[in-house]
Amino acid sequence: MTARVHSFNAGPAAMPLPVLEQAQRDLVDYQGAGMSVLEMSHRGGVYERIHQEAIDDLAALLGTGDSHQILFMGGGARAQFAFVPMNLLPAGRFAEYVVTGSWAEIAWAEAKRLGDARENWTSAGSGHDHVPSGGIVRATEGSAYLHVTSNNTIYGTQFVTEPTLERGATSGVPLVVDMSSDILSRPIDTARYSLIYAGAQKNLGPAGVTVIVIRKDLLENCRADLPEIFQYKKIAAQNSLLNTPPCFAIYMVGLVAKHVREMGGVEAAARRNEEKAALIYDAINSSGGFYQGHAQPESRSRMNVTFRLPNEELEKAFLKEAAAASMEGLKGHRSVGGLRASIYNAVPLESVRALVGLMAEFRARRA
Amino acid sequence: MTARVHSFNAGPAAMPLPVLEQAQRDLVDYQGAGMSVLEMSHRGGVYERIHQEAIDDLAALLGTGDSHQILFMGGGARAQFAFVPMNLLPAGRFAEYVVTGSWAEIAWAEAKRLGDARENWTSAGSGHDHVPSGGIVRATEGSAYLHVTSNNTIYGTQFVTEPTLERGATSGVPLVVDMSSDILSRPIDTARYSLIYAGAQKNLGPAGVTVIVIRKDLLENCRADLPEIFQYKKIAAQNSLLNTPPCFAIYMVGLVAKHVREMGGVEAAARRNEEKAALIYDAINSSGGFYQGHAQPESRSRMNVTFRLPNEELEKAFLKEAAAASMEGLKGHRSVGGLRASIYNAVPLESVRALVGLMAEFRARRA
Repeated sequence: MTARVHSFNAGPAAMPLPVLEQAQRDLVDYQGAGMSVLEMSHRGGVYERIHQEAIDDLAALLGTGDSHQILFMGGGARAQFAFVPMNLLPAGRFAEYVVTGSWAEIAWAEAKRLGDARENWTSAGSGHDHVPSGGIVRATEGSAYLHVTSNNTIYGTQFVTEPTLERGATSGVPLVVDMSSDILSRPIDTARYSLIYAGAQKNLGPAGVTVIVIRKDLLENCRADLPEIFQYKKIAAQNSLLNTPPCFAIYMVGLVAKHVREMGGVEAAARRNEEKAALIYDAINSSGGFYQGHAQPESRSRMNVTFRLPNEELEKAFLKEAAAASMEGLKGHRSVGGLRASIYNAVPLESVRALVGLMAEFRARRA
Repeated sequence: MTARVHSFNAGPAAMPLPVLEQAQRDLVDYQGAGMSVLEMSHRGGVYERIHQEAIDDLAALLGTGDSHQILFMGGGARAQFAFVPMNLLPAGRFAEYVVTGSWAEIAWAEAKRLGDARENWTSAGSGHDHVPSGGIVRATEGSAYLHVTSNNTIYGTQFVTEPTLERGATSGVPLVVDMSSDILSRPIDTARYSLIYAGAQKNLGPAGVTVIVIRKDLLENCRADLPEIFQYKKIAAQNSLLNTPPCFAIYMVGLVAKHVREMGGVEAAARRNEEKAALIYDAINSSGGFYQGHAQPESRSRMNVTFRLPNEELEKAFLKEAAAASMEGLKGHRSVGGLRASIYNAVPLESVRALVGLMAEFRARRA
């Protein structure tokens, strides 16, 4: 077996090694069942237990009480960009989008194809380098929902304190959050969200399944004239077994959730993530300007650290040395340039230490 | 390791053992890449090769020339029930459905939520025990498309000769086929289909990905005012990398496709499938009426064999003995009752021999 690389991929991203090893052991014969999870009927008892345990472990980690239900759907977070307005934005109403980055822009663009979706707030004027101050967002009277992206993978910004609806007349507007890139990275107050969705391939597991956490009373307001396969209410009524779900991806999400619980839950994950992020941000802060963070300090993401070197030539040289030291995925997204280190839950501290070691050494040689 | 059970599951279903063993070997460290396929960036070179090889191997097996393109989407065949009319049924037009079973009925029902979808033909009056005679279907003048289900998993009927549009004035109507449960089970004339879709979890791989084979000139007629994530044209333009695809499921489909090629392609698969199906149908035919097939003989599926015993008590007794002999998944769907043996590509001949052995022995004791 080859040594594992240091993966800083933005998603699909590093998964916990013990989870991969468990999946490998069970791949051909799942715990004496005589078949693989990949082959199991989704109506059989063995899979049903896997399915329910994944839901229960996620519920424990997210602190969802009786008020919310957890769903699994295929199609990625991008499909949710459409499903959210299809379910929640009736004709004659409008919805609002807090536009903090590329994915928020795409979510808004997809919603505009389906109804009256309006920009509520944007950071486009400053290259999406910050989120609303203090994480406070303000809905407009009459809005069907307010859509927020809690962490912006491409720009490296985050609602460092959770998105918070301003108190007042519109604090009852449903808050819908794309939490794809920071779910399970810290404790959240699930009660404040009407709908959370998250593509699995950052903190939850492999690509191929999306987790939805929906307030049960919202289900009653979902449109019922859609194809059934798009209706949150129908999927909820069947506990995400309306159709054949992406069983193996759900199994992997379940293994990851169990692993996060065994490692101390989201509180412990948050401490580890703070420590990892602090190491890189300290390396940026103490570099005398050699490394420049893209995000404004109060909006700096704990999941995706975006930074530049003095010029592109140095950035290329850095990436080359990183690759030689088995560090992958550090090239920034083309829309921002520079470098990006994605340091989700499963990225080990030792990978971050390797990166900051290279950052210090490279600066000493090239500054 | 436990012995493998004889899986007759209708889907998710048995996968080839060598494919599972390969996936197990590569699970933690994919061929020296230092990471799992489950963790790989979909924009990276290693995954891109996996993705393209899966497409190329499927194209070779399906005999798709330059006229068609292969796509991968999430959401299962059920999502295609909606995507097909969304893309291909404009306002003011109508589409037609050949209703040969439960899945055809659901496809039609979803389409009716989206536009003018009409029943073209139905076998509902005789418990969906047959498909159109000789496999000939007739479209109506002006129809946007004619939708056919090539194999009916629940009722155990199949277009034993491929679905064929009647020659004449309407032979140019696009033929759309749900081939979820018999794709890759036999050679097909791909040129006759405008669109084929197939959920992977029967003959192609695990649940979580759907394969679409679409005629390229049809892409130009797809509606362009949908959310991008639903547009075949947008997905085709990005070679199914518009968004993060279900990478691991696609990897497994690629392994299965390679395995089918190594085993002699779809021609050899068809011979094996004929042999397996003949064993069970012979056991039914020669049982003196003890076993009664549900499907009319000329519509008998090579993938799902549905049959009854003289009464429910005997059926329960048979299922109990089958379970004791490690045969799983033989209970018929509740809408048909009785028994069903799903014998997709990956179900080995020895499993079918075990089943017909039990059928003979049980009849000798209980008839």
